[in-house]
Amino acid sequence: MNRIEHYIRDIQDFPKPGILFKDIAPLLQDPEGLSACLSELKALVPDVKIDKVIGMESRGFLFGTMLAKRLHAGFVLARKPGKLPYKTISQTYALEYGEDAIEMHIDAIKEGEHVLIHDDVLATGGTAEAVCKLVERLGGKIVQCNFIMELESLGGRKKLQGYDIQTVLKY
Amino acid sequence: MNRIEHYIRDIQDFPKPGILFKDIAPLLQDPEGLSACLSELKALVPDVKIDKVIGMESRGFLFGTMLAKRLHAGFVLARKPGKLPYKTISQTYALEYGEDAIEMHIDAIKEGEHVLIHDDVLATGGTAEAVCKLVERLGGKIVQCNFIMELESLGGRKKLQGYDIQTVLKY
Repeated sequence: MNRIEHYIRDIQDFPKPGILFKDIAPLLQDPEGLSACLSELKALVPDVKIDKVIGMESRGFLFGTMLAKRLHAGFVLARKPGKLPYKTISQTYALEYGEDAIEMHIDAIKEGEHVLIHDDVLATGGTAEAVCKLVERLGGKIVQCNFIMELESLGGRKKLQGYDIQTVLKY
Repeated sequence: MNRIEHYIRDIQDFPKPGILFKDIAPLLQDPEGLSACLSELKALVPDVKIDKVIGMESRGFLFGTMLAKRLHAGFVLARKPGKLPYKTISQTYALEYGEDAIEMHIDAIKEGEHVLIHDDVLATGGTAEAVCKLVERLGGKIVQCNFIMELESLGGRKKLQGYDIQTVLKY
């Protein structure tokens, strides 16, 4: 068992009936858990200069900023539509029913910058794929998509083919 | 001028006409800005053991987790209703029209723990006051309410009388 696995709490039927939610609150609440998880995430990152870490709203902000600090990189917010105050670039992605969008500031990534994309969970991969497209539209190079955990049955990895996908835990 | 002040971007009329929004995205995007702001926030904290840092959804998550890591504390999420998956404790607070609520997990704070409350901006103080009440209902001791910036004309400090209120920047 991975040393951070016992900090993850299973919540039945959240946010909807039939879903088993993996709650990272106990991991964050414990200084040892928080520190161990950050070290594990950092250990996945290849030894190249990372210019920007992108964290996806809102749980991707939690370890995303700590990873940026650890890697001496800047941090970029990927947010739901209408949340970012400056000029944005937007990318839609399909949901089970309908579609949603994710946005970044147009000055968030500079041409040629090395980018690490981070979120807590890789599920269907829709949001991560949309963020990859945003980064590439701004001229950034994606070094890795980095997650605390992957829900393998949801097939997110297939949507992100061609990228380095790394996760600390797999379920 | 404070060394982090030039990283803050003014956005006119966001999120509503007549509001001047202080955007911290340029601060986060620059590794020097991110690091300097974290150091300034840390420098405000008194030299006592902090058990938990609470960050308020969602921009309070950004420096909140980094502060927790720096202080060797755990991190606790204060979220809008319905977002936290486990059993919660809730506190309502008044808005200009109507009211809203903020929630924490019931196991987020243990009796007697020393707590630092963090958010990016102190505006009217409504959310911060509600989080203070939640912490005290769970038996925690509030060491400080810690912000990147304070919008003094909105009078938030008055709502938080009796607490140690510290901010890096004042507008």
